[in-house]
Amino acid sequence: MPTLSVFLDVPLAPKIGSKLLDEFKQDQNPNKVYLAYGVCMTGDGVPWLSPVVPKTLMKLANDPSFSYECQPEQGLDAFVRVTTELLVGRHSPAIVDNRVGGVQTIGGNGAIQLGAKFLKDWYPGSRSVYIQSAQKDQHGLIFQEQGFIIREYTIWDPYRLVSDVGKLIEVAEQAYDKSILVIYNPESFVLPRKKWMKLSKTIKKKQIFLFFDVPHQGFLSGDPDRDSKILHYFVSHGFEFFCSQSLSNSFGLYDERTSNLVVVAMNNKALLCIRSQLTIYARYLWGSPPALGSRVITTVLSNPALRVEWKKSLRGMVENIMLTREKVKEKLRLLGTPGSWEHITQQDGIHSFLGISVDQVNYLVKKKHVYIPKSGQINFTCINSHNIDYIAQSINEAILAIGPGPEPREPPPKPPPSRPDSKDSKLLGIKAPGAKPSPFAALFRK
Amino acid sequence: MPTLSVFLDVPLAPKIGSKLLDEFKQDQNPNKVYLAYGVCMTGDGVPWLSPVVPKTLMKLANDPSFSYECQPEQGLDAFVRVTTELLVGRHSPAIVDNRVGGVQTIGGNGAIQLGAKFLKDWYPGSRSVYIQSAQKDQHGLIFQEQGFIIREYTIWDPYRLVSDVGKLIEVAEQAYDKSILVIYNPESFVLPRKKWMKLSKTIKKKQIFLFFDVPHQGFLSGDPDRDSKILHYFVSHGFEFFCSQSLSNSFGLYDERTSNLVVVAMNNKALLCIRSQLTIYARYLWGSPPALGSRVITTVLSNPALRVEWKKSLRGMVENIMLTREKVKEKLRLLGTPGSWEHITQQDGIHSFLGISVDQVNYLVKKKHVYIPKSGQINFTCINSHNIDYIAQSINEAILAIGPGPEPREPPPKPPPSRPDSKDSKLLGIKAPGAKPSPFAALFRK
Repeated sequence: MPTLSVFLDVPLAPKIGSKLLDEFKQDQNPNKVYLAYGVCMTGDGVPWLSPVVPKTLMKLANDPSFSYECQPEQGLDAFVRVTTELLVGRHSPAIVDNRVGGVQTIGGNGAIQLGAKFLKDWYPGSRSVYIQSAQKDQHGLIFQEQGFIIREYTIWDPYRLVSDVGKLIEVAEQAYDKSILVIYNPESFVLPRKKWMKLSKTIKKKQIFLFFDVPHQGFLSGDPDRDSKILHYFVSHGFEFFCSQSLSNSFGLYDERTSNLVVVAMNNKALLCIRSQLTIYARYLWGSPPALGSRVITTVLSNPALRVEWKKSLRGMVENIMLTREKVKEKLRLLGTPGSWEHITQQDGIHSFLGISVDQVNYLVKKKHVYIPKSGQINFTCINSHNIDYIAQSINEAILAIGPGPEPREPPPKPPPSRPDSKDSKLLGIKAPGAKPSPFAALFRK
Repeated sequence: MPTLSVFLDVPLAPKIGSKLLDEFKQDQNPNKVYLAYGVCMTGDGVPWLSPVVPKTLMKLANDPSFSYECQPEQGLDAFVRVTTELLVGRHSPAIVDNRVGGVQTIGGNGAIQLGAKFLKDWYPGSRSVYIQSAQKDQHGLIFQEQGFIIREYTIWDPYRLVSDVGKLIEVAEQAYDKSILVIYNPESFVLPRKKWMKLSKTIKKKQIFLFFDVPHQGFLSGDPDRDSKILHYFVSHGFEFFCSQSLSNSFGLYDERTSNLVVVAMNNKALLCIRSQLTIYARYLWGSPPALGSRVITTVLSNPALRVEWKKSLRGMVENIMLTREKVKEKLRLLGTPGSWEHITQQDGIHSFLGISVDQVNYLVKKKHVYIPKSGQINFTCINSHNIDYIAQSINEAILAIGPGPEPREPPPKPPPSRPDSKDSKLLGIKAPGAKPSPFAALFRK
């Protein structure tokens, strides 16, 4: 019997997942709080679930005609139809023209994976992908594995304490032709008409391909239709784009990995061709997608009563987030915490910037056991009636101990615009990795 | 608004799936029969379902503690444990030594995808993959996409009308060092001790890596434990291997894509390293696997009463297949169909060779609307009380019209053994594609 493995050279891969979460888990302090979960949490500190989900699952499980047959590679057609309609609107010109459709994928990651593979093969000349910093570790690595060069950008303005969508204009102006621009949470994408025209013109002129990432439609305003208005706008202005539409979050059905890669094409012929190729990729990546999640979601979205109930649950959840924001701001005011905290209620969605410095974040983590990412972007649904007082007091203490609290101020003068190559890419927050993209496995070797 | 798509060059991909099935669907003949479904069918012509599945799903849906949280990247630990035990045996020395484990994947395709990616990066020097002809279109293309050269083999002996596992010895002897040997349905792998020793020695000497594909454990004998005996043997003889273990078929839970890539390593350290790397690949391929299928299967396998019920359902299904084989043979005998039909009852599992010629297959398809693949390998569960008489009569007619029926005979003398390079690889049924492997997309361009 041989005793030597042929895999002697395979090292242990670095642990996946958040270092911050690991530290939190090991912390023995009874007051510890983790404010960086990826999913929406309830007041009891467990992942949020829309009550329509267990109800619908029970309905399906009790249905004698329920089928366990394999889905086709592109997924459940009804699921793709209802979720695509949810995204672009039921009366979208793209639906009328039959130039929008999708492919069911394994979660948002799967949608990015499928889209990235397609763009690598069919969008020649495209090498650079612009990705928001917070998505770099997740989506960035998927594009990087396909040989793209990742350039980071952020729309959070740490000086004025606002999310400044206008920064996208600078990104687009300095981007390479035929690059890919990934826009996370486009729901929050609001621009004055003049700026919009400028952005739109630049994107079209440079043939920048838009890849939206909509991880939780309805989490911004509580109304999924209102949240996707900006996508309707892109559709009506004749853009072609991909959109990774994850349905897991909006239903709380995190475990079934139910997403849709939506394709808006120029015409029906292009749509058919793109979808047919995507179906081939899906076949060789995972065969066909799992069915349960898509059955539950399709049932809810197709049934008027269940759909109303689902929307109501979304609205309730978003109202809770707004209330939490108000409460945090008010508590900091009552504590007399130095700084302006208006930006807490001016942002929306579940993840928002606290606008505090890295030193203040470190203080909160090390001294107060309040776990916050370096960026200061926290998940507001992790704050609940049990921990809100401790969190507000801890923020207050961190500000008093380290220095002044956040205040909106004028940003420093901008250097003249230039191409984001490896030399000057630090301008505008776009980072160009100096090294050439590494092959997949090499990323994870020690 | 631009009117030109940037994807003008993207052609319509060739249709995925079986051409035979398409033709069957278009056929208007009321007697038409399709004998090539991939899954197990019931007597009523619908996919088979173990009765424990809906029962368990209902149990889970009614459980208030049922969680919809995301699974970790490697899948549900309990699922991986119980299914790995099902494959290698609960008392396997590999379990005692803690050198066997797995990663939950999206179906059998996902397991092959994950394993192929790993082997490409971590089994250097390996370029050739030996795959049984029937799996070429599915698994072959996955390996090919990873840059491997696919070489086909078959263990069906069309002369002697038997599945001849001994052919694997020739494949191994002529294979390149460090190549990968994919063995489909190893359950049917029975060899006399002497031949076994020879095969084992060759595989070890040449460092051939074994990749088993177990798509329906329990479908051969009706007893999942008995079916995996041969894998226990490989484990106890110190082989390292991968195994794509699909659980979808054995439960009839086709739609949830629940599989396990089982890793048997030389020691615990190697196992940990290999699994940690596989987990990284899983993260970037699909994030984490869907939960429902693994929850249902884990519940069944962990509950003694449900497990007994599941095994009983498997046994019942396999007994039905055996009965169908007997009936087909008897009907051909009563019709006086020329040829020996003993091989029908000598094979096992759901897919078996009819042993008829391509002309006879063509006759059945064209004249009798009985849809059979060119290889003559059919799914016996597609034969039921409604169609068995028509099928037997049609086979009889095809034999009478075209020529003699199958008779076991001596194979022609073998040419001297030689390396399976592109020149002489036709020997032993191993085909070496002349062209170098094409990149993924190119495979599907017109």
